Amino acid sequence: MKDFNDLADFSNDEIAVLLELAGRLDAHPEPVALRGKVLSLLFLSPSLRTLASFQAAMTRLGGGSFVISPEMSIHGLEARPGIVMDGAAAEHIREAIPVIASYGDAIGIRAFAERKNLEHDLAETEFSAMTDLIDTPYINMESAMGHPCQNLADWKTLDDFDIPANNGKFVLSWAYHPKALPLAVPSSTLFMAAKRGMDVTVLRPEGFQLPAPVMQKAIFAAEESGGSVRETNDRTEAMEGAHVIYAKSWSSTAHYGDKLGDQKLRENLIDWRVDDPWFDNARDDCRFMHCLPVRRGVVVSEPVLDGPRSIVIPEARNRMLAQMAVLHQMLGGAS
Amino acid sequence: MKDFNDLADFSNDEIAVLLELAGRLDAHPEPVALRGKVLSLLFLSPSLRTLASFQAAMTRLGGGSFVISPEMSIHGLEARPGIVMDGAAAEHIREAIPVIASYGDAIGIRAFAERKNLEHDLAETEFSAMTDLIDTPYINMESAMGHPCQNLADWKTLDDFDIPANNGKFVLSWAYHPKALPLAVPSSTLFMAAKRGMDVTVLRPEGFQLPAPVMQKAIFAAEESGGSVRETNDRTEAMEGAHVIYAKSWSSTAHYGDKLGDQKLRENLIDWRVDDPWFDNARDDCRFMHCLPVRRGVVVSEPVLDGPRSIVIPEARNRMLAQMAVLHQMLGGAS
Amino acid sequence: MKDFNDLADFSNDEIAVLLELAGRLDAHPEPVALRGKVLSLLFLSPSLRTLASFQAAMTRLGGGSFVISPEMSIHGLEARPGIVMDGAAAEHIREAIPVIASYGDAIGIRAFAERKNLEHDLAETEFSAMTDLIDTPYINMESAMGHPCQNLADWKTLDDFDIPANNGKFVLSWAYHPKALPLAVPSSTLFMAAKRGMDVTVLRPEGFQLPAPVMQKAIFAAEESGGSVRETNDRTEAMEGAHVIYAKSWSSTAHYGDKLGDQKLRENLIDWRVDDPWFDNARDDCRFMHCLPVRRGVVVSEPVLDGPRSIVIPEARNRMLAQMAVLHQMLGGAS
Repeated sequence: MKDFNDLADFSNDEIAVLLELAGRLDAHPEPVALRGKVLSLLFLSPSLRTLASFQAAMTRLGGGSFVISPEMSIHGLEARPGIVMDGAAAEHIREAIPVIASYGDAIGIRAFAERKNLEHDLAETEFSAMTDLIDTPYINMESAMGHPCQNLADWKTLDDFDIPANNGKFVLSWAYHPKALPLAVPSSTLFMAAKRGMDVTVLRPEGFQLPAPVMQKAIFAAEESGGSVRETNDRTEAMEGAHVIYAKSWSSTAHYGDKLGDQKLRENLIDWRVDDPWFDNARDDCRFMHCLPVRRGVVVSEPVLDGPRSIVIPEARNRMLAQMAVLHQMLGGAS
Repeated sequence: MKDFNDLADFSNDEIAVLLELAGRLDAHPEPVALRGKVLSLLFLSPSLRTLASFQAAMTRLGGGSFVISPEMSIHGLEARPGIVMDGAAAEHIREAIPVIASYGDAIGIRAFAERKNLEHDLAETEFSAMTDLIDTPYINMESAMGHPCQNLADWKTLDDFDIPANNGKFVLSWAYHPKALPLAVPSSTLFMAAKRGMDVTVLRPEGFQLPAPVMQKAIFAAEESGGSVRETNDRTEAMEGAHVIYAKSWSSTAHYGDKLGDQKLRENLIDWRVDDPWFDNARDDCRFMHCLPVRRGVVVSEPVLDGPRSIVIPEARNRMLAQMAVLHQMLGGAS
Repeated sequence: MKDFNDLADFSNDEIAVLLELAGRLDAHPEPVALRGKVLSLLFLSPSLRTLASFQAAMTRLGGGSFVISPEMSIHGLEARPGIVMDGAAAEHIREAIPVIASYGDAIGIRAFAERKNLEHDLAETEFSAMTDLIDTPYINMESAMGHPCQNLADWKTLDDFDIPANNGKFVLSWAYHPKALPLAVPSSTLFMAAKRGMDVTVLRPEGFQLPAPVMQKAIFAAEESGGSVRETNDRTEAMEGAHVIYAKSWSSTAHYGDKLGDQKLRENLIDWRVDDPWFDNARDDCRFMHCLPVRRGVVVSEPVLDGPRSIVIPEARNRMLAQMAVLHQMLGGAS
């Protein structure tokens, strides 16, 4: 494996191999597999699970990592191309990223979407500008539209809880949140579930459709794997027979980059909080997933989040295991 | 060992085994004992020694650790139960703590007392609410009333400097400090010295008595180990024949949670600074201990702190060795 | 090796051995050489390369490190001697440094110059006050006047790019920067190039002469190694036949500690930006070096920085390799 940027770069068979490896590394630790190996971790956006799970993953495999983020006592970083740097920032990412990468055997980069221009973000303009600077293998730790580590962990979680691939019903539901959040998780989660062969329903209010290219990419994946993709704003219809609901808030694509417009649309949608009645016509054992962090009582009710449907903690733990598999394949000599 | 939360959970024999192990790991390093093992470190309160010494301890034993603290670029953490999270915090500790714990083989947690309500703090309400969320072994890195890692390190320091257990005279002295500090160190230090079998005197001005349950717990421990516990505000009487004075500032229990009341009482006590004349009727070789950080010229005079009585630096180094022993017992397979 | 504080403490033969070791560790990793060993890293000034490369270096050799900096959630640190600590800072470096050092097998310390008094900074008053507190081997990660890790990496870079030692022409050029920066890099770089036996020209505008003792130290080194040292403000003369230009901004020594005076002198020197025409009478293959961070379009033009002359990225990577050699010699048992 060179880079880990998008599940779309891997066949379902290759994903199965990664997940089998993840399970094996959990059951049978390999504490010297990556000894002396270094993972550089660059966080240009906040993190908890990613920050913790990558450090833990490298330690479990016998290697190590270091973290750089702008909140640390480093020189301010500039990202704009062609700028005369006479302001506050003392270093440009054009130097910082190749240098940080040069200290590691691989680099993980997190950089959320700017959310000013949808085409710009869909094209991963910023993230590509960064990865173009380096030859080192890299891992996408969440870009404008992608979060492949979350996707791989979620796939594993669906497997772990015996949620069927073909004929498994996956509901990706928008949920209320006071802020306009990025599209990376919903877009890449939709793709993951479709690629896994599931029947995916995007449940969202009007104005919160996912972008057409995102839907199209998922539809193609579903066609190949025997799944399906549809969208609706009708909760009852969406939840009918569902195996799993994956809740996530995201920005209005109709008002992308327009905070006020998004806010206006959003403020009438406070009732989009996942709650017990949502499950009335779902399967009895319908599961609740969320990538975390999640706002209790806002995105989801406490009874659902703390109840037996919720698998958010094992889902989060799978972040570490999925990433161990990726790192093992990427850096592990013989494999 | 499952958890390391309170010296009271261990017999004096078990403590002797831990301290023997600490010494052995110092003399004979075991750099592969915990290879591939991960310690999660969650700091909800500031730290220097604990932060550094736990990371060093894991490295020396061949494992590793990661640190999460609110000052890092993570999502703000909410701790209040039952809250609708529509404010600034994006994540609740009910998710954050199990997730962070799930990446480690053990977790260390630091969370100082809220210091609003003494009963609440004496009951360790907050700390227990956190440890109740997890099954992973945990280490108390300082809670409202406990600091067992400091206690174990201090016990070792007393041993190292040949300060007798039975018939050893230990003075725990309140000292002036501009702020109202937590009760964790004085309370658990008193208990440690009593449990070690020493004759302990709590020297403190009026209004700074330690809480009755804290005194009672120490008196019981002394009864069992052949030591004694008393308190006084008379410095000359307290220091008579002392082997060691352990200085520490703490809040007024008479004005607990009442900043202004505490301040008023405190401002007349600036002369409670440990200084050479304090030692006039102590033993010639009477030692000075402090858990650090210490304010020079405020809590203790420079001549005492920099002089031959002071053993604060080896005391601080013992933090690492004591924690290595705990980690080795907790995570080290066969032992 | 006890400490690594100044290239002047090593003979050219000893430096050759270190650089040979650096190359060997790059080609033939030694992932268990320092297993169980700990490097304490104390950053009292900001860092990116040093922060990342030391952590990576220890991991590659099988050991580990921990980082302490005032921006972390630690108690504020006081450095003034003899002070009564009744202000904001809760801990004095007189405790903090010995304690931090006691958790490691060696300690790296970074503390930039105060830049109030030139004699004070030339004498390394502050840095020596810190290293005097400890017995542990220490590494200077940049002090008031020294940056030996950068110097050793630069020496390696000159070797790597086949830039001759004797008869190699090294131009150390002042460059414009909006702020008055420390003298550590230019002073120690000048010494490094002179000690390597190169013909060194310090190119700087009036008022930016390096201090006389700095020049003198370099002149002595050049005499011993067959090199030479001169200074000029004439760019054409300086660049004549140059093998390499090393750009760096620094404070006006004529206005040391006088921000306004420095600013006034500096504001007319915006054209001291290294640009293509500077190379008109240099060697065709003349290289561009800089320790980074560098302000694009201010210190150097983008075409030079992104062009084939620039070797700043391999130069930065050599930081890690040079430091691995130092750590290996310092901590690596048998060697």
